[in-house]
Amino acid sequence: MVQRLPERAEYGRDTINSILDEALICHVGITSPDGYPVVIPTIHARSGDTLYLHGSPASRLLRSMKTGDEICVTVTLLDGLVVARSAFHNSMNYRSVVVIGVPRVVDSPAEKLAALETVTDHVIPGRWAQSRLVTDKEIKGTLVIALELNEASAKVRGHGAVDDEADYDEPIWSGVIPIATVSGAPVSDDRLLPGVETPENIATYTRPGWPKTRY
Amino acid sequence: MVQRLPERAEYGRDTINSILDEALICHVGITSPDGYPVVIPTIHARSGDTLYLHGSPASRLLRSMKTGDEICVTVTLLDGLVVARSAFHNSMNYRSVVVIGVPRVVDSPAEKLAALETVTDHVIPGRWAQSRLVTDKEIKGTLVIALELNEASAKVRGHGAVDDEADYDEPIWSGVIPIATVSGAPVSDDRLLPGVETPENIATYTRPGWPKTRY
Repeated sequence: MVQRLPERAEYGRDTINSILDEALICHVGITSPDGYPVVIPTIHARSGDTLYLHGSPASRLLRSMKTGDEICVTVTLLDGLVVARSAFHNSMNYRSVVVIGVPRVVDSPAEKLAALETVTDHVIPGRWAQSRLVTDKEIKGTLVIALELNEASAKVRGHGAVDDEADYDEPIWSGVIPIATVSGAPVSDDRLLPGVETPENIATYTRPGWPKTRY
Repeated sequence: MVQRLPERAEYGRDTINSILDEALICHVGITSPDGYPVVIPTIHARSGDTLYLHGSPASRLLRSMKTGDEICVTVTLLDGLVVARSAFHNSMNYRSVVVIGVPRVVDSPAEKLAALETVTDHVIPGRWAQSRLVTDKEIKGTLVIALELNEASAKVRGHGAVDDEADYDEPIWSGVIPIATVSGAPVSDDRLLPGVETPENIATYTRPGWPKTRY
């Protein structure tokens, strides 16, 4: 997915939002205090024009975000392996978003609470209402980071191989192997109380953009 | 996956290798000429103790790797959504690797050729031998970057929710929703020559660690 040919189009906010909303994880790039880049996977969630990240106030990643330095949040969805007749033209179909900006530490308990609800329901819609809600102490013990979607861009590749014209005469298979993320049957916790059933949003878990297949 | 609890263990080279080898993409963090971090998804492949990245010499990402600055390559495999009784203790099961180092530009045509074979067969084992091989011109036109696996670490979370003791008395479902990557039926290129069949490694594409299910 390194850009090898100038054929990846740029897309607008609807596309950016749909990629951010489908993805379960993002990769956050920060500059370490020693000056080198560090990339860490984490959970994100979007609310309007704001992307939220959260974690323990003790986490190195989140602590590093309080410096006023720019960070980069990248989300990638892999859609297919593009198989060309020539190895040189192999590629991947994907949708990705890159967001760059200076993050803001969320101080307001109300915005922190709303952000935690957004993150919880981003991962499993409806889960916030099913959960034992967070306490004031837990809210205080969570660092929430907000990044505005001012500088966000999407890239999408979604087509077959583009071979050299002469190679179309080669008797070599070419095409796309679709790739998708799916869920399996939920595994209940060993200490579940008797009679507690698997909620519908867990039992039939999927996401917009995912195939309906379970594994 | 921000580290909220000090429970994520550290793992050795076998684990690091298996994560790098299963993953189809990585996220590369570089420091831009303006000094901010940039995170870009790309394809990687491991050969022994070396991680290879490749792309066009014109790509901004790869050009930036020639500066002698450190880069960070992070690979993440998402294995499950950990659903706790309290929203605060939700988590994800995952396997991730972080590699940090100063990349080396591969100049030797022989090492470049071997690296391209490694990348091709990393994505689809056996594909190199099925492809129209790369030409000397294509090899010259590809920038290959090598990163030694000297400074590499893995993190793995692979268990159920850990709730506060009091919350185990709550009649709330808790457990894990397994998450996996799968392939779909290959889609042949429109311009395939008559009689060219889908090779077995494409028709039955899967990877170590993937469920056998297709979608």
